[in-house]
Amino acid sequence: MDYEVFELGDVRLQGGATLRAAKLAYQTYGELNADRSNAIVYPTWYSGQHYDNEWLIGEGMALDPSRYFIIVPNMLGNGLSSSPSNTPAPHDRARFPHVTMYDNVRLQHRLITERFGIERLELVTGWSMGAGQTYQWALSYPEVVRRILPFCGAAKTSVHNIVFLEGVKAALTADAQWRNGWYESQPTTGLRAMARVYAGWGFSQEFYRQRAYESAPLDYGSLEDFLVGFWEALFLKRDANNLLAMLWTWQNADLGATPGWSGIESALAGIRAASVIVPAQQDLYFPPEDNEWEVARIPGAELRVIPGAWGHFAGAGMNPVDTAFIDGALRELLAREV
Amino acid sequence: MDYEVFELGDVRLQGGATLRAAKLAYQTYGELNADRSNAIVYPTWYSGQHYDNEWLIGEGMALDPSRYFIIVPNMLGNGLSSSPSNTPAPHDRARFPHVTMYDNVRLQHRLITERFGIERLELVTGWSMGAGQTYQWALSYPEVVRRILPFCGAAKTSVHNIVFLEGVKAALTADAQWRNGWYESQPTTGLRAMARVYAGWGFSQEFYRQRAYESAPLDYGSLEDFLVGFWEALFLKRDANNLLAMLWTWQNADLGATPGWSGIESALAGIRAASVIVPAQQDLYFPPEDNEWEVARIPGAELRVIPGAWGHFAGAGMNPVDTAFIDGALRELLAREV
Repeated sequence: MDYEVFELGDVRLQGGATLRAAKLAYQTYGELNADRSNAIVYPTWYSGQHYDNEWLIGEGMALDPSRYFIIVPNMLGNGLSSSPSNTPAPHDRARFPHVTMYDNVRLQHRLITERFGIERLELVTGWSMGAGQTYQWALSYPEVVRRILPFCGAAKTSVHNIVFLEGVKAALTADAQWRNGWYESQPTTGLRAMARVYAGWGFSQEFYRQRAYESAPLDYGSLEDFLVGFWEALFLKRDANNLLAMLWTWQNADLGATPGWSGIESALAGIRAASVIVPAQQDLYFPPEDNEWEVARIPGAELRVIPGAWGHFAGAGMNPVDTAFIDGALRELLAREV
Repeated sequence: MDYEVFELGDVRLQGGATLRAAKLAYQTYGELNADRSNAIVYPTWYSGQHYDNEWLIGEGMALDPSRYFIIVPNMLGNGLSSSPSNTPAPHDRARFPHVTMYDNVRLQHRLITERFGIERLELVTGWSMGAGQTYQWALSYPEVVRRILPFCGAAKTSVHNIVFLEGVKAALTADAQWRNGWYESQPTTGLRAMARVYAGWGFSQEFYRQRAYESAPLDYGSLEDFLVGFWEALFLKRDANNLLAMLWTWQNADLGATPGWSGIESALAGIRAASVIVPAQQDLYFPPEDNEWEVARIPGAELRVIPGAWGHFAGAGMNPVDTAFIDGALRELLAREV
């Protein structure tokens, strides 16, 4: 097992349910220094697991493990932390409780304080739903978080984004083998269908216009080869109930629903961290316009748009040009005295 | 029955199959004048039937039935013309042959010449797949078509558009009740799933950001009300095999594959009609960029972009502002001496 598990005991969730014997799986990169001042938290994204984040961590990069102690906590529902697929009855599978961004971050805060004794974070960053957790960190723990750099995500899931996810969910659950979550084996027809729905959203019209999937770094032989080899492969690796649990978290993400805050505008205004918000220019479900709206409300926040055709998957670590852009923005933010 | 049917006999299709006892359902508006010089053809769109086109026809509008003889031919596969749902065995249901845009327009040309003796058309216009048929008319019958105004469509289906449709198709066919087309009753779970996939594509991010579905002219009570009352209702009216037959036509639309032509660029250059191409600014699957590319290749063509947030459904006749824009463009084109 290439990761650690932090046992949280029974956890009361934001929605009122109790997550019993909750587990937070995580991996760390680098060493925590003596005064515990070099820590970074980098949460995972929809369906991703800690190793899917490693492309942004490396010697000579902004997230340099020879300099920083980088903690990658796995999101609840992702199959490694507490999830429908690994929770015992009666809270297993279709009965796994609803988890919010707020819940995820509260447990991650327990990890860094109770296990590591960390009181300050140099940075929180993450892609997509990882970005959602990043905003939540800044609002929930303003005394802890110095800097945030959410990329290709939002503080509150937009209505259009919710609709996109309705399509993904409907495609998965149209497979009768799903059986309302009580399947014996994975509903693979539904998983493949959701993959094909996702394919049109993950990359931009321009990406497909260029047939960028046919050239390096992707280098698939044809469109169908890309749909099967990349998209279907991505979701066939996952558990259907886990995907639906995380999808609920995503659709219901709302920084403005954080206890003690009333609405998204005041919540954004309450962020105290140095904030660089990084959308991708042609992202179809986290469009830059939504981040512009946020940046106008977060004190001192800066917007930096990843140019190019990769859309949402500019933040997935597959395109070296986009990776260099994100790494550069991280480097500059980390160099900033705050 | 509020429409007529033109019997075409056995028809050899572009792909090599034979459509037996082919039927073209159509409706006309206005009167053909004595010298047969006032005819307009206005084909239908994906899943639409002739009455779905009537919003653009009316006294005082560009398509004025007191002045023009407007023929609305139903696209093959739409349930009124020859379709999986109405063709006898052995060519019924899942065995209905593949039909192209070229096939559709060839049969429509037989309708106007054989039934009506029309040799010239003042205009061909249409929305979405109706736009696809419009380009085809101009290329297949340059001596016939004086003017074209395709709106929210393209001469060749883009790769991204093909991927969007893959998601729609996968959602519909994930329902086991579909049974590879040999269902006893409609696969309603799949039809509802495809509707939810479609919902994110049909209108723009900005449309949903404004919650435009909650105000006039749509006036739904909530997002879920819109998803069920508008989107699911739209597809539950249809037959699954019909939808899949038309989807094949759409995915394989390519003006450049017209017999006698080699590729999309030369085909566009071969259009002789006065051409006004009308995309919607925020259309997510027929984006204006694709039409810009076309306009640069069609001799003398003009681009007119429908502004606003309605995306693809700017061309559906539900938003008075967009309807006025399209009507105005039609009026100006019809007034042009060609």
